[in-house]
Amino acid sequence: MRAAVQRIDGLEVEEVEQPVPGPGQVLVRTLACGICGSDLHAAADLRRFAGLIADVGGPGGLDPERGVVFGHEFCAEIVAHGPGTERILPVGTRICSVPVVVGPDGPEGIGYSNRYPGGLAEHMVLQEALLRAVPDDLPSEVAALTEPLAVGEHAVQLARLTGQEVCVVIGCGPIGLAVVAALKARGHGPVIAADFSAPRRRLAELVGADDVVDPAAESPYGKWADLGVPTRQADRAALEMLGGQVRDAVIFEAVGVPGVLKTIIRQAPPRTQVIVVGVCMEPDRIDPFYAVTKELEIRFSFGYRADEFAATLDRLGRREFPAEELVTGVVGLDGVAGAFAALGNAAQGKVLVRP
Amino acid sequence: MRAAVQRIDGLEVEEVEQPVPGPGQVLVRTLACGICGSDLHAAADLRRFAGLIADVGGPGGLDPERGVVFGHEFCAEIVAHGPGTERILPVGTRICSVPVVVGPDGPEGIGYSNRYPGGLAEHMVLQEALLRAVPDDLPSEVAALTEPLAVGEHAVQLARLTGQEVCVVIGCGPIGLAVVAALKARGHGPVIAADFSAPRRRLAELVGADDVVDPAAESPYGKWADLGVPTRQADRAALEMLGGQVRDAVIFEAVGVPGVLKTIIRQAPPRTQVIVVGVCMEPDRIDPFYAVTKELEIRFSFGYRADEFAATLDRLGRREFPAEELVTGVVGLDGVAGAFAALGNAAQGKVLVRP
Repeated sequence: MRAAVQRIDGLEVEEVEQPVPGPGQVLVRTLACGICGSDLHAAADLRRFAGLIADVGGPGGLDPERGVVFGHEFCAEIVAHGPGTERILPVGTRICSVPVVVGPDGPEGIGYSNRYPGGLAEHMVLQEALLRAVPDDLPSEVAALTEPLAVGEHAVQLARLTGQEVCVVIGCGPIGLAVVAALKARGHGPVIAADFSAPRRRLAELVGADDVVDPAAESPYGKWADLGVPTRQADRAALEMLGGQVRDAVIFEAVGVPGVLKTIIRQAPPRTQVIVVGVCMEPDRIDPFYAVTKELEIRFSFGYRADEFAATLDRLGRREFPAEELVTGVVGLDGVAGAFAALGNAAQGKVLVRP
Repeated sequence: MRAAVQRIDGLEVEEVEQPVPGPGQVLVRTLACGICGSDLHAAADLRRFAGLIADVGGPGGLDPERGVVFGHEFCAEIVAHGPGTERILPVGTRICSVPVVVGPDGPEGIGYSNRYPGGLAEHMVLQEALLRAVPDDLPSEVAALTEPLAVGEHAVQLARLTGQEVCVVIGCGPIGLAVVAALKARGHGPVIAADFSAPRRRLAELVGADDVVDPAAESPYGKWADLGVPTRQADRAALEMLGGQVRDAVIFEAVGVPGVLKTIIRQAPPRTQVIVVGVCMEPDRIDPFYAVTKELEIRFSFGYRADEFAATLDRLGRREFPAEELVTGVVGLDGVAGAFAALGNAAQGKVLVRP
């Protein structure tokens, strides 16, 4: 089969061996697969990426010296059932799946394993038990957004929200947009979304942001007072004493580059929850004194649970918001290398690959 | 009155004007007052300290160019009542107080205000409404520990504990010891306390640590598996699936110097709560990737609430643990400068001043 293979020195479309489903597994044909920011990180330095994954005890099976086929945000169609499968979903069913498969050496991450190619290939092997059928009228391109949107769903679930918070989302790439969508799906808000890119701010509005901010023109942290969030501990105490409504702030970090967390710590009002959803792979500097005196709470969010993934696909099926607008580009396998390069300069939403 | 006055260029015992209680205030005679790590920070660079306090919107009244009398961990005796006081506690009553007073320009921090000298002086002015009477049989030296012990109380209240957690306390200075004491007062544990200093480890045992570790000899993070805390997400999932008991870890950072938080982030098991009680006043470096993939939760703790302060004094009154052992030195005003210098090389518990 054809696949976009990432090697140490670059990405090439190659003819590779088609994977064979083992016990409990199915063979699928990839219909659509998103390119994730983590794929860009991994492509930039495959050895370092593999080392970090191993270091945190992630799923095994990624030897950077061998080729790897990325792609863990996919919609696919069942082609054949392997041995020992239940076959509840017949051949031809369109499915999504949490990108994990249990191989002979334990769990491996689809798209980050030499043995299990991801969705930037014509075929994949998936775990039957993890498959979720895609509703008939949901386009495959939209179903492929389940995975990144589930990341936002998880981050919002992780935050301890009462519904009274002012929510600020820093960064409107796919993950920031996923957070905005998940917040609005639960009726939280106001949600203020910030991004330097005008197209991304427009996407944030499409998925429901109540206000968008261009940090080049105004501070996304400048409106606390207008929104009822006290910015000094003393003001907070005074407001509470007088029985006034005190709103808390929740800030979602969805950029994942060094320096953003430091700015958030400096600009957050006292007692703010900071939910870090961006995956920063570099060392970062913070000023703990500000976090201490404001008693900030910083929660790091990663991935999602299987039930959050399923709920996200269900939500997409109900077409609650125009998710298809998040797709700003579609390429074939031959366009993957170009798309990786183009995604470096971040004016885009999600780019999908149709192998 | 005599007072240890900190100026930009050093600390000297001087004759200063005795403060006069304003409306709702009382004049007290200082009986015992602890030296706090924050005092050492402030003494080391008074301008920078005042700048940081102003920057975070702390209480006003600290001009570093004028002299300041430190001391916010005190036990004192009422000498005279100011105008408009209720006088429920008569002259001669021994008291403790949250170190805040409301001056003509708003709240000021006792011991960090030019107008309101702290306990490193013969007399102070306090706010009548904040006074708590000290039980008759509680020595003033022990009552003076209420303030630092309340910091531990608050940190433990801030942590979301079920009672099933393995608690690791990094640093056994007065704040780390306060955390150990507060944990054990609630029956939490096992509590593992780590410090390079043997005398401090002995103090940790005295206040109830179940195990103490010398980081020079063994890692304080090396016993997770023995204590039932899974160190890999996959092990955790497997244990939960098999119905095994999964214990979470909670790590209290009570050192407050750069580098400790980074090590904790690297060594913490997945899903650990990290409670930062140490006040690090320098920039610090962390590796967010490890915090993200392990979904760590970092809560910064600062000070205490008035009810936590009162509960701590009540607990000291019940003599539940030998708090007097935490006092490893007592000096007069003339010994303050020497004590500041000696506390730099951290083998000590709490040093008290009897002005």
